[in-house]
Amino acid sequence: MPTLILVRHGQSQWNLENRFTGWWDVDLTEKGVAEAKAAGELLRDKAVLPTRAFTSFQTRAIRTLHLALAGCDRLWIPEIKDWRLNERHYGGLTGLNKQEMRDRHGDEQVHIWRRSFDTPPPDMEPGGEYDLSSDPRYVGIEVPRAESLKLTIERVLPYWESAILPVLARSETVIISAHGNSLRALVKHLSGISDENITGLEIPTGQPIVYEFDEAMQPGERMYLKDR
Amino acid sequence: MPTLILVRHGQSQWNLENRFTGWWDVDLTEKGVAEAKAAGELLRDKAVLPTRAFTSFQTRAIRTLHLALAGCDRLWIPEIKDWRLNERHYGGLTGLNKQEMRDRHGDEQVHIWRRSFDTPPPDMEPGGEYDLSSDPRYVGIEVPRAESLKLTIERVLPYWESAILPVLARSETVIISAHGNSLRALVKHLSGISDENITGLEIPTGQPIVYEFDEAMQPGERMYLKDR
Repeated sequence: MPTLILVRHGQSQWNLENRFTGWWDVDLTEKGVAEAKAAGELLRDKAVLPTRAFTSFQTRAIRTLHLALAGCDRLWIPEIKDWRLNERHYGGLTGLNKQEMRDRHGDEQVHIWRRSFDTPPPDMEPGGEYDLSSDPRYVGIEVPRAESLKLTIERVLPYWESAILPVLARSETVIISAHGNSLRALVKHLSGISDENITGLEIPTGQPIVYEFDEAMQPGERMYLKDR
Repeated sequence: MPTLILVRHGQSQWNLENRFTGWWDVDLTEKGVAEAKAAGELLRDKAVLPTRAFTSFQTRAIRTLHLALAGCDRLWIPEIKDWRLNERHYGGLTGLNKQEMRDRHGDEQVHIWRRSFDTPPPDMEPGGEYDLSSDPRYVGIEVPRAESLKLTIERVLPYWESAILPVLARSETVIISAHGNSLRALVKHLSGISDENITGLEIPTGQPIVYEFDEAMQPGERMYLKDR
């Protein structure tokens, strides 16, 4: 039976510091490392063992994947990284403290930036401290200047359809280690969640979510592996 | 310029315990982790930054790769794992202590098992404690019952030619994280070392070796990155 495991990376340094992160490449904290290891041990204990892995271009998701795979003795499975699984690009908000932004722009404006479905944050200024357009990992990729959740979905879903679904359909157990918003894109699609409701859906860090697919490749209910 | 980096995994638990390891999947010790991190920092400091990675199916080489890539901020590069980069299969010696074997069989016999070019060790008994023929990672692969260095070379070199060399020829900087004998196979080929001399060549753990290739894809001198 094709099985999909979604894991949101464990706590990162900027989660801890309450800063907008997006595409900026921030590492896991010690707590994040522990969360990723615990995810791997849960996979092992529940005997839901990945056979193929996908992750983003971002260290926090890649390390979460590696720590989780190590925890269930699956470091040896094939692994593909793709920028289309990256976090939503937070544009000009990248690096800024969420509370400072609330103090400066008001709760409502920050809420819109964080939780609007289709309003992107302000654009990233080219050449600024957090501009990644000349980062070697993004050679040949048009780095967005800012993304709404809607824009994020528009790059995640084509990748899901073209690269991940065909692998899953070969009865593989696929693990995707990714980010709050790239995973929201997938959960919205798989669980049929509306534009209005998806932005409020919290995906907990380091907590594997599982979908089992039927022979017609229709996903069943979304469940937490810990409850399975 | 195409550049090849070879890294032998850092100290493993069975290196420390002086046991024959081969294909058995033993993890790194803390010292091995430190060696792998230091390799990554050296890559960073020398600005020899991998763009493509290859490793074996064995945890100690995969973790060495990941730690080294993390050390030079290259976790995001594509990575391919293949059993043909595995350590030599030590057959029936797997798991046994090298000193006990010397006490039991004599120095000369153990030296032949360890250092003969073409005499394989005794075969692994099917169904024994260290038999990996039913390990899920080797599904579809005929796990050897024992390998000499010669037999190891006979699986490493075709993989080098078909999978790694074409990537390198696209002017990539390729890192291979592997094992004493799979790396001996490559060094023998690239540096033109005789059957007699290769078995005595020690490849130090966690110490990146670099070859630069010319336009005709001929390798230059083998050098330690630390001396470059």
